[in-house]
Amino acid sequence: MKKLNVGLIGYGFMGRTHSNAFRKVNNFFDLPYQPVLKAICARDGGKAKAFAERWGYESVETDWRRLIERDDIDLIDIATPNNTHAEIAIAAAKAGKMIMCEKPLSMDGKEGEKMVQVIKKAGVPNMVWYNYRRVPAVTLAKQLIDEGRLGRIFHYRAKFLQDWTISKDLPQGGAALWRLDVKAAGSGVTGDLLAHCIDTAIWLNGSIGSVTAMTETFIKERKHNLTGKVEKVGIDDACAFLARFNNGSLATFESTRYARGHKALYTFEINGENASIAWDLHDLHRLQYFDYRDEGRVRGWRSIHVTDGDQPYMKNWWVPGLQIGYEHTFIHQVADFLEGLDNKKPAHPDFRDALETQYVCDAVLKSAKTRKWEKVSKLK
Amino acid sequence: MKKLNVGLIGYGFMGRTHSNAFRKVNNFFDLPYQPVLKAICARDGGKAKAFAERWGYESVETDWRRLIERDDIDLIDIATPNNTHAEIAIAAAKAGKMIMCEKPLSMDGKEGEKMVQVIKKAGVPNMVWYNYRRVPAVTLAKQLIDEGRLGRIFHYRAKFLQDWTISKDLPQGGAALWRLDVKAAGSGVTGDLLAHCIDTAIWLNGSIGSVTAMTETFIKERKHNLTGKVEKVGIDDACAFLARFNNGSLATFESTRYARGHKALYTFEINGENASIAWDLHDLHRLQYFDYRDEGRVRGWRSIHVTDGDQPYMKNWWVPGLQIGYEHTFIHQVADFLEGLDNKKPAHPDFRDALETQYVCDAVLKSAKTRKWEKVSKLK
Amino acid sequence: MKKLNVGLIGYGFMGRTHSNAFRKVNNFFDLPYQPVLKAICARDGGKAKAFAERWGYESVETDWRRLIERDDIDLIDIATPNNTHAEIAIAAAKAGKMIMCEKPLSMDGKEGEKMVQVIKKAGVPNMVWYNYRRVPAVTLAKQLIDEGRLGRIFHYRAKFLQDWTISKDLPQGGAALWRLDVKAAGSGVTGDLLAHCIDTAIWLNGSIGSVTAMTETFIKERKHNLTGKVEKVGIDDACAFLARFNNGSLATFESTRYARGHKALYTFEINGENASIAWDLHDLHRLQYFDYRDEGRVRGWRSIHVTDGDQPYMKNWWVPGLQIGYEHTFIHQVADFLEGLDNKKPAHPDFRDALETQYVCDAVLKSAKTRKWEKVSKLK
Amino acid sequence: MKKLNVGLIGYGFMGRTHSNAFRKVNNFFDLPYQPVLKAICARDGGKAKAFAERWGYESVETDWRRLIERDDIDLIDIATPNNTHAEIAIAAAKAGKMIMCEKPLSMDGKEGEKMVQVIKKAGVPNMVWYNYRRVPAVTLAKQLIDEGRLGRIFHYRAKFLQDWTISKDLPQGGAALWRLDVKAAGSGVTGDLLAHCIDTAIWLNGSIGSVTAMTETFIKERKHNLTGKVEKVGIDDACAFLARFNNGSLATFESTRYARGHKALYTFEINGENASIAWDLHDLHRLQYFDYRDEGRVRGWRSIHVTDGDQPYMKNWWVPGLQIGYEHTFIHQVADFLEGLDNKKPAHPDFRDALETQYVCDAVLKSAKTRKWEKVSKLK
Repeated sequence: MKKLNVGLIGYGFMGRTHSNAFRKVNNFFDLPYQPVLKAICARDGGKAKAFAERWGYESVETDWRRLIERDDIDLIDIATPNNTHAEIAIAAAKAGKMIMCEKPLSMDGKEGEKMVQVIKKAGVPNMVWYNYRRVPAVTLAKQLIDEGRLGRIFHYRAKFLQDWTISKDLPQGGAALWRLDVKAAGSGVTGDLLAHCIDTAIWLNGSIGSVTAMTETFIKERKHNLTGKVEKVGIDDACAFLARFNNGSLATFESTRYARGHKALYTFEINGENASIAWDLHDLHRLQYFDYRDEGRVRGWRSIHVTDGDQPYMKNWWVPGLQIGYEHTFIHQVADFLEGLDNKKPAHPDFRDALETQYVCDAVLKSAKTRKWEKVSKLK
Repeated sequence: MKKLNVGLIGYGFMGRTHSNAFRKVNNFFDLPYQPVLKAICARDGGKAKAFAERWGYESVETDWRRLIERDDIDLIDIATPNNTHAEIAIAAAKAGKMIMCEKPLSMDGKEGEKMVQVIKKAGVPNMVWYNYRRVPAVTLAKQLIDEGRLGRIFHYRAKFLQDWTISKDLPQGGAALWRLDVKAAGSGVTGDLLAHCIDTAIWLNGSIGSVTAMTETFIKERKHNLTGKVEKVGIDDACAFLARFNNGSLATFESTRYARGHKALYTFEINGENASIAWDLHDLHRLQYFDYRDEGRVRGWRSIHVTDGDQPYMKNWWVPGLQIGYEHTFIHQVADFLEGLDNKKPAHPDFRDALETQYVCDAVLKSAKTRKWEKVSKLK
Repeated sequence: MKKLNVGLIGYGFMGRTHSNAFRKVNNFFDLPYQPVLKAICARDGGKAKAFAERWGYESVETDWRRLIERDDIDLIDIATPNNTHAEIAIAAAKAGKMIMCEKPLSMDGKEGEKMVQVIKKAGVPNMVWYNYRRVPAVTLAKQLIDEGRLGRIFHYRAKFLQDWTISKDLPQGGAALWRLDVKAAGSGVTGDLLAHCIDTAIWLNGSIGSVTAMTETFIKERKHNLTGKVEKVGIDDACAFLARFNNGSLATFESTRYARGHKALYTFEINGENASIAWDLHDLHRLQYFDYRDEGRVRGWRSIHVTDGDQPYMKNWWVPGLQIGYEHTFIHQVADFLEGLDNKKPAHPDFRDALETQYVCDAVLKSAKTRKWEKVSKLK
Repeated sequence: MKKLNVGLIGYGFMGRTHSNAFRKVNNFFDLPYQPVLKAICARDGGKAKAFAERWGYESVETDWRRLIERDDIDLIDIATPNNTHAEIAIAAAKAGKMIMCEKPLSMDGKEGEKMVQVIKKAGVPNMVWYNYRRVPAVTLAKQLIDEGRLGRIFHYRAKFLQDWTISKDLPQGGAALWRLDVKAAGSGVTGDLLAHCIDTAIWLNGSIGSVTAMTETFIKERKHNLTGKVEKVGIDDACAFLARFNNGSLATFESTRYARGHKALYTFEINGENASIAWDLHDLHRLQYFDYRDEGRVRGWRSIHVTDGDQPYMKNWWVPGLQIGYEHTFIHQVADFLEGLDNKKPAHPDFRDALETQYVCDAVLKSAKTRKWEKVSKLK
C-alpha cells in the first residue's frame, strides 16, 4: 500500500471531519493508498499544534504557502473559509499537488472558472467535499435513477432547513462564525446549504436551465463577535427558488436557518413516471422508495433501511440493521478518491462539477435581485 | 330493497356506533336490505326517547322483553353491558329474531356455550361486533394471508394499550363506567380489549392451543361512582400472555389501561417466512407490509395507505388518499351481515366464532391464577 | 329544532360529501337547525332520481332555475363544475336563498367580484366548501396560531400532490372528468388543489402580497372521453409558486397530479420564532408540533393524535384514540354554518374570503405567463 | 496523557468494534488515558497478522495465555466466543490485568459467579460490553428516569428481532457462525439478544423478580459448516417471556431470528404514571417521549433527535442534526471506562452487573423447560 501524504489547511468543523476520514479509511476499505497525516496548517500555531496532537498530524505549519512548498506533501486539503479557496487551490495546483477542497468551490462562478482552468492545466487529481452524495441511501438513489427505474422525471424538490440563527443575540463574525460573514462566506444559506442541494440535484437529475428566486435577511443587524460593533447583516438567511431542469422536470428548492424545529433537515424527493424516491438527512440511513409497478393492493412507500451488504458502502461496515452516521460520508469520499487515483477513473464531484453548482448559485442570487427568471450559465 | 327492522337495546357508546352504521350503510353500499331504526330500548325512558330523536328511531321501549315480543322487529341489536348479553340473546333467539351482539359474547365460555347452543337450535342469523376485522387495512391483511403470501408463520404479537384509568381518583361503577365493574364486565382489559386482539388473531392465524398469563390490578381500591363507597377493584387493569398457536407459531399478547401516551393503540404484527404484516389502530388506514421476495437493495417495509378502490371496502367511499375512520368498521359489518342474509354466506364472526375467543380469555384468566400454562378449550 | 330545506345541485363526488354532511350532522351535533334533504337537481333526471333514492332527497329537479324558484327551498348547495358557480349563485342570491358553494368560488377574480357584490346586496348567508379548515388537526393549528404560540412567522410551505393523471391514456373531458377540461374547470391544479392550500394559508397566516409562479402541462394532448377526438390539453398539470405574505414571511407552494406515490397529499408547515406546525392530509388526524420553549434535552416534534375531547370537534364523536376521516370535515362545516345562522356569527370562509383565494390564483396564473413577480389584488 | 496498553483476543465482528473504539476515542474525548493497540491475539496467526496491519496493532500473539503473561499489557479485551470468557477472564484477573469482556459474561450464572469472585479478589477494573446503554438516546432515557420524570412504572416491554436465520440452508457451526452452536454460545437468542434487553432493563427499571418463558427452535436440524454433517440444532431460535420487576411493574420480552423484515430491531418502551419512553435501534438517534404533564391539546409523543450538545455524549461529535451510529456506542464505553479509571468512579456494567443479567437468562431458560414461573437468583 502506497503512502499519500496529506497537508490539511484549517482545523475547524471540516478539519475534523476530513481528519477522521483520512485516519479511518484504511481500517474499513481495501485501498491502493494509505493517507498519512503529514501536516496541519493554521495561522494560530497553538491551535494547530493542539489539533495535530489530537489527530496525530506529524507536523505543523502556520503559513499555507509554506505547506504547499513542502516536497513531502502529496495532497492539499482545503478546509478554510470560502474566500480563501481560490488562492490556495490555484497555488497548490501550480505546485502540482492533488487537491481536496471544501465546498462551495468558490465565492462565485467567475472565481470558480479560474480555478478550473488552472487545475485543468496542472492536471492534478481534484475533488470537492460535497459529502452527501456518499450517504449510502443517496448513493442508492443514484443507482436506482441510473438504472432507469423512475422513468421520465416530472418533479424534483429539495430543502435544507436549520434553525440555529433565529436568536437576535447571536453575533455574526469571525472564527467559528465566519459562515455569517458575507465577506468570508460569499453568501448565506445559498452557498452553505443550497449548494449541497444543487450538487445532489445535478448529480441525480442533470443540469438546471433556469431559476427564479427570492432571498431574505430576517435579522438585519447583528453585533460582530470580535469587534462588538453592530453591523448590517450581509448574508441571506433564507433562499427559495423555482427551477426548470433541462430534462423538462420542475423543481422547488428552499433553504433557511429560521425553520424552528429542524437542525439540519436536508431533504429531497424525485417523482418519476414509474417510481419516486425521497430522503432526509435526519434519518440518513433510510431511503423512501415508491414503485408504481408493484401490485396495486400492496403498493406503498418502502422504508428501506440502507444497512445491508448489497447496498452502497455497507459491506465495509458492520452487520445489517446497524447504522453508520454523518462522518462516514467523508470516509467514503476519501475511499473513492484513493480508488480513483489508481484505476484512472477519477472520483466526483471534481472542481468542474462544483463549478456548475456555482453557476446555479450565481443565477439564484441574481434572480433574487432582478426578480426575474435567470438562465444558468453552461459549463464549457 | 327489503326492509329490515332493527330493535336496539342500549344507548351508550356502542348504541351510537351501531345506530350510525344502520343509518348510513345504504348511502354507500348496494344491498338487498335496508335497516329501519324501528325501536330503541333502555330502562331509562327519557334517555331512550332523547336517543330516539337524535337518531331517528321510530319508537321507544323500556323493557327488552317487550321489544323481543314485538312482531315488527326483525333484528335485535344488543349494546348493553356484558352480563346481560346471554339472557337477552337467548330470549331473542327463542323468539326467532336475528341477533347482532356486542363483544365480548358472554361473561365466560360456559355462558357462551349456552348461547351458541340456543342460537344454533333457533337457526337465526347472528353476529358479534368484533368490528376491527373490517378496518380496510385489517381485511387486506386477511386477504394477503389467505393468498399464502406470508408462508409459514413464526410469530404473532398483539397489544391493546390505553391510559385512561391511571388516575387514582377515577371512580369505578355503574352507568358509563360499567367496564370497571367486574360484576357487569366479567373482567377488565381481558374481555374488553384482549378479546378484540384474540378475535383478530384467530381469524388471521388460526386457533390458539395454550397460554401462560399474568394479570395485575394496579389501583386496588376505588370509590364507586354511584354509592360513593370505596371498594376493592375486581377487574384486571393489565394482562399479558404468551401463547402457542396450533400452526406452531409463537405469540405475545398484552393489554393495559396504564400505558401512558396510548389512547387506543391496538397493534398487531405477523412474521411469516416470506413476508410480514403490521397494523395499528392509531393510524388505522395504513398497513405495513414487508415482502422478502422484493429485490434486496430496495426491500423495505411498505406503508400502504389503504384508500384505493381495489382495496377492501374503499370503492364504496371517496377517492384515493381520503380516509375513513373508526365508525366505518361498523358500517362494513352491517353491509356484510345484510349481504350474507341474502346470499346464504353468513358473515362472521358469528356467536360460535366469538365463543372461541371466550375460551382463550378463560384460559388466560385461569393461567393468571394457576401461574401455569393452560390449554384452550376446543370448539365443538 | 328548526328545519332548513336544502336544494342540492349536482350529484357527483361533492354532491355525495355534502349530502352525507347534511344527513349526519344532527346525530352528532346539537344545533338550532336540522337540514332537510328537500330536492336534488341535475340535468339527467334518471341519475338525479337514483341519487335522491340513495340519499333520501324528497324530490327531484332537472333545471336549477326551477329549483331556485321553489318556495320550499331555504338553501341552495352548489356542487357543479366551476364554470356554473357564478350564474347559479347569483340567481340564488337574488332569489334570497342561502348559498353553500363548492370551491373554487369562480373561474377567476373578476367573476368572483360580481358574485360577492350580488351576495352582499342580497344579504344572504353564504359559505364556500373549503372543507380542510375543519379537519380537527387543522383547526387546532389555527387555535395555536391565534393564541400567539408561534411568534413571528418566518416560513410557510404547502403542497398538494396527486398522481392520477400520469397515464397518457387517461382521457380529458366531460362528466366525471370535467376537472381536466379547462373550459369547465378554469384551470388545472391551481383552482382544484392550490386553491385549498391558499385558503388554508390565508386563514392561518394572513394575506399574500405577491407571487412568482411556473406551470406545466406534461401531457400536451389527450383524447376527449365523449367525442373521442385528440385535443390540446388546456389545464395546468403542475404549478409551483413562491410567495411573500404581508406579515413578512416567505412561502413556497406546489401542486401537481404527477407526483407518483401521492394520492392526495396536501401538506403544510409553518415555522415561527417559537414554534412550528406541520400537517398532512394522508394522516389527517395528526398534528406535528414543535415548541422551542420545551426543555432542550427533551425537545422534539410532537405527534399529536387529535382525537381527544378537548381538541376541536372531537367531543362530538367517539372516544380518544378513535379517528374520524375526510367526510367529517364537511359535517363540521355544516355544523358551524348552522350554528352561525343562529348566533349571528357567520361561519367562514364566505364568498368574500373565497374571493381572496381567487385573487391569488389569478396572480399565480398571470405570473406563470409573464415570468415575473405579480402583486395580488387586494380585497375591498 | 497516560498510555494504556491493550491486548485484544479475537478478531471477529466484536474485535473490529472494540479496535475502532480504542483507536478513535482520543480524537473526540479529552481523557486521562490513551489506549495503545499493543497486541492482537488469535489462534490463526495469519489472520491475526492481517488484522494487526489493518488496525495498527503493534504485535501478534497466537496463545492468549502468552498474551496475559506479557508485562507490557495493561488491559485484556475479550472478544471471543462465550464459552471461552470465563477461563480467559479468570486468568487475566489473576495476572492483575484490567478486563473488558464481551457480553454475555458467561455461559450461565454459575460460571459467572466464579468470574465475579475472582475479579473481586483481584480488584482489577472490569467491564462488560453491553454497548447499547451508551446510545445517546438510551443514556438520555436513563437520565429522564433517574430524574423521576416517569413516576411509578407500570410497564416495560422489550424486543430484539432479527431475520437472518430463516433459511433452512444456513449452516450452523464454527468460525463466524459460532453463535448458532450451542456449545460455543451457550444459548441462542437468549444470551445473544435478550441479554442486551435484560441489561438495559435492569439498568433502567431495576431488578427482575420472576419470569415465565417459552423458547422455540423452528429449524430442528442444520448442516454444520465445517464438518458438513447434518446435526440437531441446540440453540433457541426464539424466546419470549413475561416478567415482574421488583418495583411492581409488568414486562414482556421477546427475541427471535425469525421476524422477517427486521434486521436488528432492538426496541424498548417504558410506561410510567407521568411519562413514557420508547426507543428502537433501527433509528437509534431518536428517543420517543410522551409527557402527560404537557398541556392536553398539544400533548403528543415527542420525537427527540438526540444530536444536540446538551444531550449525552453529543457535544463531543459534530453539530446538531448530524448523526452518529452503532460503532460510537463502543467509543463511549471506552471513554467512560478510561474516565472511571482516573476518577475512581468505575464505569458500568461491570462483571457483577452482568452476572445479574446472567441470572435472568438462567431463569428464562429454566422456565421454558419447567413451563412454570421461575424466580431470578439474587445478586449477593
